Amino acid sequence: MAHPIITLTTDYGTHDHLAGTLRGVILNINPDATVVDITHHITPYDVLDGALTIGSAYRYFPPRTIHVVVVDPGVGTERRPLLVRADTHYFIAPDNGVLSLVYEREAALSVYHLTQEHYFLRPVSRTFHGRDIFASVAGWLSKAWQPAAMGEEVTDFKRFSVPKAKSENGAVSGVVLRIDNFGNLMTNLTAADIPEGLLKAGAVQMRVGDREVKRLVANFAQGDAGEAVAIIGSSGFVEVAVNKGNASRLLAVGRGARVTLATNGVQGE
Amino acid sequence: MAHPIITLTTDYGTHDHLAGTLRGVILNINPDATVVDITHHITPYDVLDGALTIGSAYRYFPPRTIHVVVVDPGVGTERRPLLVRADTHYFIAPDNGVLSLVYEREAALSVYHLTQEHYFLRPVSRTFHGRDIFASVAGWLSKAWQPAAMGEEVTDFKRFSVPKAKSENGAVSGVVLRIDNFGNLMTNLTAADIPEGLLKAGAVQMRVGDREVKRLVANFAQGDAGEAVAIIGSSGFVEVAVNKGNASRLLAVGRGARVTLATNGVQGE
Amino acid sequence: MAHPIITLTTDYGTHDHLAGTLRGVILNINPDATVVDITHHITPYDVLDGALTIGSAYRYFPPRTIHVVVVDPGVGTERRPLLVRADTHYFIAPDNGVLSLVYEREAALSVYHLTQEHYFLRPVSRTFHGRDIFASVAGWLSKAWQPAAMGEEVTDFKRFSVPKAKSENGAVSGVVLRIDNFGNLMTNLTAADIPEGLLKAGAVQMRVGDREVKRLVANFAQGDAGEAVAIIGSSGFVEVAVNKGNASRLLAVGRGARVTLATNGVQGE
Repeated sequence: MAHPIITLTTDYGTHDHLAGTLRGVILNINPDATVVDITHHITPYDVLDGALTIGSAYRYFPPRTIHVVVVDPGVGTERRPLLVRADTHYFIAPDNGVLSLVYEREAALSVYHLTQEHYFLRPVSRTFHGRDIFASVAGWLSKAWQPAAMGEEVTDFKRFSVPKAKSENGAVSGVVLRIDNFGNLMTNLTAADIPEGLLKAGAVQMRVGDREVKRLVANFAQGDAGEAVAIIGSSGFVEVAVNKGNASRLLAVGRGARVTLATNGVQGE
Repeated sequence: MAHPIITLTTDYGTHDHLAGTLRGVILNINPDATVVDITHHITPYDVLDGALTIGSAYRYFPPRTIHVVVVDPGVGTERRPLLVRADTHYFIAPDNGVLSLVYEREAALSVYHLTQEHYFLRPVSRTFHGRDIFASVAGWLSKAWQPAAMGEEVTDFKRFSVPKAKSENGAVSGVVLRIDNFGNLMTNLTAADIPEGLLKAGAVQMRVGDREVKRLVANFAQGDAGEAVAIIGSSGFVEVAVNKGNASRLLAVGRGARVTLATNGVQGE
Repeated sequence: MAHPIITLTTDYGTHDHLAGTLRGVILNINPDATVVDITHHITPYDVLDGALTIGSAYRYFPPRTIHVVVVDPGVGTERRPLLVRADTHYFIAPDNGVLSLVYEREAALSVYHLTQEHYFLRPVSRTFHGRDIFASVAGWLSKAWQPAAMGEEVTDFKRFSVPKAKSENGAVSGVVLRIDNFGNLMTNLTAADIPEGLLKAGAVQMRVGDREVKRLVANFAQGDAGEAVAIIGSSGFVEVAVNKGNASRLLAVGRGARVTLATNGVQGE
């Protein structure tokens, strides 16, 4: 590849040199690499937020992209650094479940515990493995493309399941997984959780925080001013949004808030 | 072009995967593209803010740069996706006026309604045309360079005028268009609105919020501590600034605030 | 070099077009350049913050990288624009001390006052030398690599010393230099300031704000919930951190806060 692509997803923020230093380490090893940010604003230490973010983005990148994912509250402990080869993408991350959505979606996986220290910057610090291990390994991988030479294959890597919506008593209950830049609430309910009659009718009976949501709309602009509406978002999840407004502020609802959707006793139309 | 340049200007923020996903879509179509951020922090839904931002930046990029501008409160509605060919630059944006400053400044324009869906990611979502239409079209344009093949030429595209300063009763009145990272207030007054005598004397009589501004200085450092001064900014607009301070906070003034400048009965010197 | 690397470190923020415009200016002069952000979130006007940031990052970039550093409260005044050639890196910055850590660490330095205006964008504005001088010069340098042709060598450039920790009365006292994205407090104390017995024992007696810090740990995860611990950070400075927490918020301590470390009358183990 003329210009191998390496993406960065971290919780480092962009207010100091950390993200810049990762870019430097990669380019120092492979000046032909193209380093691309997914985000550096994962909620600090939040492995689930990291998993959702890389899970939403990676498939849009070209085959052979290398994704560096550093959300790493256990940095400096015995938690293992991993290199994962999926069907068409590579991932470099700590073994803490931050790749759970990748594991869930990719059939063919080889997972390596990174043990070959000559691919690291040395001495390896106790607090900045993003620089000393993850970025450095990404740089070398983008030159040699031999993941099996960089560590030992393991099968007992950590993974977790994204919280799933639950059906009970004629309702589906879920949670708000993320808030986007517009204040839209991304829940873990999917279109499949909504009875077909309601989907067609566009009439739902949802509760988020103290608030009722009564309409499922096709696009944001169909919402009335100040009205909280439901919408099937671009990742397939149900979102709660306010047309040209901020649902999170208007409903005073944040991440982790409970969401319920009535599925019986409710007639669309 | 060895490495076609594609810029991104959006209101997506950088806290989730959205901007990263745009980069992935473009690189997946054209791995040789150089993707460059202008900003992802346009005020959400604010088409005027988007228009001012792309209007300030685009001319500094090389000929044949492709500018993707996504501030799109009408995503998923009938508003048209456009591809605009100006003399030396290309623009891809929704038809909502976000390119108004480009239309104002560029003499030779061809504007195409993007109708050829094989240049889109499919299925096209209702809520993320940045990914499914705008980035995708940018990727293909950077390979084939045939805008006319991507849609149908239109002439009834939306445009608006940036609010202009008004002269009345010996004063010019305008508004604060934007606040920059230093808290400087960028107004819609220009050097041409200031009588030459005042310009030379550096003595103005401006009012912003509750505050008088009495000096027009040549550079920020000429302001005294805590003094609000006027200055001709780098885009040609009059700005109100505080030397090493934050004018927006000090004057408790935000975007849209009214600004008046006396133009008679005032003697420089 | 096929793709010369140019880094950007500024206090422009990322909410408007300024950083994007720098990228445009560089790419317009040299479309083959790779423009890489270190950060645009230096505290506005804060030359020390800028010096610490570029000082932490530059050495991780490849030889011949050009670092543009714009923290420039004196823009438009007589302060000189500089081009610095160190052993393996180049720096372009205002002459206000923002390169002090580079001067401190690099033995072989040639410092040029940028006087050759044909390398500038003209007319040069009074308020945006990042665009008109620094980015423009970076673009031309990345093509011609002749720093001596761009200005006149000077030796009286401005530099300052980073505040050093002081020993007195059986204690070392220092300050909090920066807060990172996790709320960790980076101080100007180094491992060398901690008596070896304490270092080995991991038992310190530090005071930050109102709070005692009693343990020096090897990695963040060794801290108990809510416990403020000391740690030797990745740049060699002592940091105060809270495992999966935010030390700055928990201790209500910000930049500039005083830190003391007892060095006698204290027995590790």
